[in-house]
Amino acid sequence: MMNKICIIGVGLIGGSFAAGLKKVNKVKTIVGFGRDEANLAKAKSLGVIDEYTLDISQALKGADLVLIATPVNSFKAILEMIKPHITERMIISDVGSTKGSVIQIAKQVFGHMPEHFIPAHPIAGKEKSGVGAADANLFNHKRVIITPEKNADTQSVVAVSDLWESVGAKIEIMNETKHDDLLAMTSHLPHMLAFSLMDYLISSNPQACKYAAGGFKDFSRIASSDSIMWRDICINNPDQIIKHIEGYQQSLDKIANLIKTQQSEALEQVFHEAKSARDSWLKD
Amino acid sequence: MMNKICIIGVGLIGGSFAAGLKKVNKVKTIVGFGRDEANLAKAKSLGVIDEYTLDISQALKGADLVLIATPVNSFKAILEMIKPHITERMIISDVGSTKGSVIQIAKQVFGHMPEHFIPAHPIAGKEKSGVGAADANLFNHKRVIITPEKNADTQSVVAVSDLWESVGAKIEIMNETKHDDLLAMTSHLPHMLAFSLMDYLISSNPQACKYAAGGFKDFSRIASSDSIMWRDICINNPDQIIKHIEGYQQSLDKIANLIKTQQSEALEQVFHEAKSARDSWLKD
Repeated sequence: MMNKICIIGVGLIGGSFAAGLKKVNKVKTIVGFGRDEANLAKAKSLGVIDEYTLDISQALKGADLVLIATPVNSFKAILEMIKPHITERMIISDVGSTKGSVIQIAKQVFGHMPEHFIPAHPIAGKEKSGVGAADANLFNHKRVIITPEKNADTQSVVAVSDLWESVGAKIEIMNETKHDDLLAMTSHLPHMLAFSLMDYLISSNPQACKYAAGGFKDFSRIASSDSIMWRDICINNPDQIIKHIEGYQQSLDKIANLIKTQQSEALEQVFHEAKSARDSWLKD
Repeated sequence: MMNKICIIGVGLIGGSFAAGLKKVNKVKTIVGFGRDEANLAKAKSLGVIDEYTLDISQALKGADLVLIATPVNSFKAILEMIKPHITERMIISDVGSTKGSVIQIAKQVFGHMPEHFIPAHPIAGKEKSGVGAADANLFNHKRVIITPEKNADTQSVVAVSDLWESVGAKIEIMNETKHDDLLAMTSHLPHMLAFSLMDYLISSNPQACKYAAGGFKDFSRIASSDSIMWRDICINNPDQIIKHIEGYQQSLDKIANLIKTQQSEALEQVFHEAKSARDSWLKD
């Protein structure tokens, strides 16, 4: 059992992690830190955190682990803020959606990647944001990818893995480049497609929405995700996202061309394979 | 109360319509017709239809209305098959996803659009197909678009509207051109995007699926739709679908360019507007 964890940014992800740890009684005290006192007070009243402070030295005093759960563009300022208060044994971790940029920022701030900094990314979320949407079960049966650098302290990797496992997550370890490429495909690309669809609808015929069936609603659900978080993901993983948008456009062009040239059998084949892949994937 | 309705093609839509009508006791007898006797027997055993036959003259004998609920590419053959058995007062209707092509085929087969042919399109569905997925409540609170030609018999329009309303649907009447444009945007385009996403995933990294979060699953759900039906929709509404794919590609290009040029504020703005539109739409 850890004595004290500090969570910087008590929103959906930070709050759900805290709520999950408290549910399984894994930590004695969880302290929230952030800029918005009303949000922290709400988190405390919801029972998500035990206490909060707006003083970073108080927040980190005696902490075994500090988790950064804010959008990635704030990481440089946050790492600079916590740097003077980090002790030798304090584990640093985060939940950023892009891992290469997080490691790069840490190297800038610390001059090297601290051995006790263990980057992590829980692959879970909701289209709702904020601590009001926090859920102790959010990470149950979800994957958490951990991307430790070569110099990472093994015990810290184990400690971070153990916390996530205790809230029900399945751990995978890979390097940050593989993570950023994979997530650009499975998460960043679908979000860009959903945002583009809403953008197209707004620009061409906003009234059309009311004729949309369930499929469209599901499809556009992820377009309701937090705009700041997604801005930061785009800015921090541009090359991979662009690569996958371009790859995707080739698939879309292929289908458009099959429609243009009325290639009925080839269309059926593409649709059939898509359906098979999707159906077999859901069985896994 | 109608005396007899014949449903040609007792799948998800035809079956759900039949089940809904039986639930509200709107028709004395519903007869199923199709090529696959095992499917018709299943529909009967599920209580979706009252009886079935493989003989079209029997199926249509004394029917007040015949509903064609098969993929649009089969319409020509079906209309030619039923033509000798249609009586003057028998209403013909359908549930095809494209209406311009249905009207064009009817004009080809009958030499003109029959006054009693009232094309309709229920905007409802599931990614599961077949009579096993039929649901008496499928059309509850869903829209049904009816696209009568100028010469349409008013009483037939009223009768078709009344049946759909009795299973909970909301009726809208518009011309077939407007319907095909609207649906190309709100239904056909999202399906093409989902099929393209699966196609891209299959071609580049099929193993990536396991790292996808809930958003991706929702997004790709519609890629599990029936491949024959979607082939037929593409073949029957190509110009509108291509137009909207091309329009969509401009929105996607815009976002890709904002990422390339790291235009952080503009990205946030696009994402924010997408979220607002989506959120306000759900409130309607």
